[in-house]
Amino acid sequence: MATDPLPIAQALIRCPSVTPADAGALDVVQRLLEPLGFGCERLVFGPDDYRVDNLFARRGSGGPHFCYCGHTDVVPPGDLAAWSDDPFAAVVRDGVLYGRGACDMKGGVAAFIAGLTDYLAAKPDHRGSISLLITGDEEARSVDGTARVLEWMQQNGQIPDMALVGEPTSRRVLGDTIKIGRRGSLTAWVNVHGKQGHSAYPAGADNPIHRLVAALAPLLAAPLDNGSEFFPPTTLQVTGLDVGNTTSNVIPAAARAMINIRFNDLHSSAALTERLHAALKAAGCRYEMRTECSGESFVTQPGPFVDGLSRAITRATGEVPKLDTGGGTSDARFIARYCPVAEFGAVGETPHQVNERASVEELRRLADAYRMILEEALG
Amino acid sequence: MATDPLPIAQALIRCPSVTPADAGALDVVQRLLEPLGFGCERLVFGPDDYRVDNLFARRGSGGPHFCYCGHTDVVPPGDLAAWSDDPFAAVVRDGVLYGRGACDMKGGVAAFIAGLTDYLAAKPDHRGSISLLITGDEEARSVDGTARVLEWMQQNGQIPDMALVGEPTSRRVLGDTIKIGRRGSLTAWVNVHGKQGHSAYPAGADNPIHRLVAALAPLLAAPLDNGSEFFPPTTLQVTGLDVGNTTSNVIPAAARAMINIRFNDLHSSAALTERLHAALKAAGCRYEMRTECSGESFVTQPGPFVDGLSRAITRATGEVPKLDTGGGTSDARFIARYCPVAEFGAVGETPHQVNERASVEELRRLADAYRMILEEALG
Repeated sequence: MATDPLPIAQALIRCPSVTPADAGALDVVQRLLEPLGFGCERLVFGPDDYRVDNLFARRGSGGPHFCYCGHTDVVPPGDLAAWSDDPFAAVVRDGVLYGRGACDMKGGVAAFIAGLTDYLAAKPDHRGSISLLITGDEEARSVDGTARVLEWMQQNGQIPDMALVGEPTSRRVLGDTIKIGRRGSLTAWVNVHGKQGHSAYPAGADNPIHRLVAALAPLLAAPLDNGSEFFPPTTLQVTGLDVGNTTSNVIPAAARAMINIRFNDLHSSAALTERLHAALKAAGCRYEMRTECSGESFVTQPGPFVDGLSRAITRATGEVPKLDTGGGTSDARFIARYCPVAEFGAVGETPHQVNERASVEELRRLADAYRMILEEALG
Repeated sequence: MATDPLPIAQALIRCPSVTPADAGALDVVQRLLEPLGFGCERLVFGPDDYRVDNLFARRGSGGPHFCYCGHTDVVPPGDLAAWSDDPFAAVVRDGVLYGRGACDMKGGVAAFIAGLTDYLAAKPDHRGSISLLITGDEEARSVDGTARVLEWMQQNGQIPDMALVGEPTSRRVLGDTIKIGRRGSLTAWVNVHGKQGHSAYPAGADNPIHRLVAALAPLLAAPLDNGSEFFPPTTLQVTGLDVGNTTSNVIPAAARAMINIRFNDLHSSAALTERLHAALKAAGCRYEMRTECSGESFVTQPGPFVDGLSRAITRATGEVPKLDTGGGTSDARFIARYCPVAEFGAVGETPHQVNERASVEELRRLADAYRMILEEALG
């Protein structure tokens, strides 16, 4: 008789862990893992006014080391009146579990613990070791969560050989999609300096808007690439452009632009930054530019780890998962710096929405899939 | 013995006629013209809170009808502490007259009245007729001044055969430059609509900044023309560009641009407006555009009127004047709709500046030149 993830998911949802609050959620996880033989470390990071609780749990010390990564913080429920039920009541109706986090991703954490329990019952002496990295800082700042825990893990010799993030990655049916990478995101703020003057005498001025248009036009005229094996084309969006001049006959002294680039594995943030510099210089801009990269692009090339994931998922669900890299960013961007990482979880239909929900049947199949993934990874 | 323009200029400067105030300036003019046989009409226009006084004076009723156009309003003195003297004291020091309006253009009005006085003394029975259009609304709104007086003149059969605007047109020495035309000025305010969205998923959005850059880039890439016989090339300046978005990953819903075009006689404001529409449409913009034309371009082709002006100026100053169309706008843009118009006056070194001034000797030579211009025009 398989372990049911439903009561675990309900226990987690009933902790109102609106990010970065923990509200007892990690205690629920820890109390389930300790009897299974996991050594648990609670890692609290962050400034006094933004304390974040994290859990690192590991069973065994040998290799290969498989790590499951997830989070127990959730986004706020929003307008309570719009919910059919209390978002923290974890009501089940017609085979559907309702509540904030049901989908993103307390349901996933519960499914992993259920599948793990069954795996260990069947294979108490498996090779290698299993760990869980469960953070309370994924939904907001993502500063004192996974990224900091990974630093701690590195300092303590706990870097795994492979990692699976349990975010909801399935698109239409459970198992149809694995994420094996994510695009990077680079934002640039540019301030172009010109020389103020009268629009009737432009020869004596230097119009920073004209410089900026000349710099941006070629960047926008053609795509930066046509995509790569696992990635869609890189996109560049100018999301801001401001001058603040209201006098129609005055050439302004400066113009500011804001640019966001979502880039695939054909680029690095450093190379794209150079490309922006080159475009600005080619247009003769005098400027300052500040950039922020919230994550480099990464991809875990198909190989034994990804192949095993796919086989397990097909066994559990009948689906042959598509290897995808779409969507925004997840904590996988931090993990990719240390080890191969992929993402697999429930159907992501209602994350962050009112009446967030998960099919109980799907959670049970997800638990099966996670069990089979452990079988593939560790035998 | 020639009539001295200096005391006339001083009397005018001592009226603090900061636009649109008259402060007695037009009375000074009228009291000088009436004894010379001019019939004077005071034409007050404008709303209750912005009354503008204007003077139309004419001597004789036959043709050809020569009209001198000028203004007695001045710009504010600005920081009084920066002036060496009271800007309304009309102090003369070392042969230089100091005061607001000395150059732009009470000095010019005084020089014309002095030259006119001498001309009439020598030629009391000249052919044709002479008029003066002196406004008090040139420096600010230019709504209830020359434009309205011209409407009144048309209604009353007073449109001249030729007009001379006495603005300071000389560049380095008196007589080196006549203006025979002016560029037009068209301003456009454009609001481009897009579709808001997430910068990670631009396919679902429509970035109005990208549309605007695509519309503007070709307009800025090449000059609209290479100039014409009497005009420099048309200039197009984007003087504003604003979005107001501060969130780097949000594609904004709209972008606004402000464009000022100074155009020569190869264009009309209507044709340029169409050109802007065409560029916006070619870039697929959904947009609204509002335009304002503060004056079409105009040129008075060289012929008997301009030839006579040139001859008179050469006789008075020794200079062969360049026929120019540079600079901003003047009231000549209104007059050009009715009759041939040219502009000639003092060296424009200090208009609108602190310690505005005019050489007394130059004012006297300008009076000579105006007298000779009347001789050329009317015999």
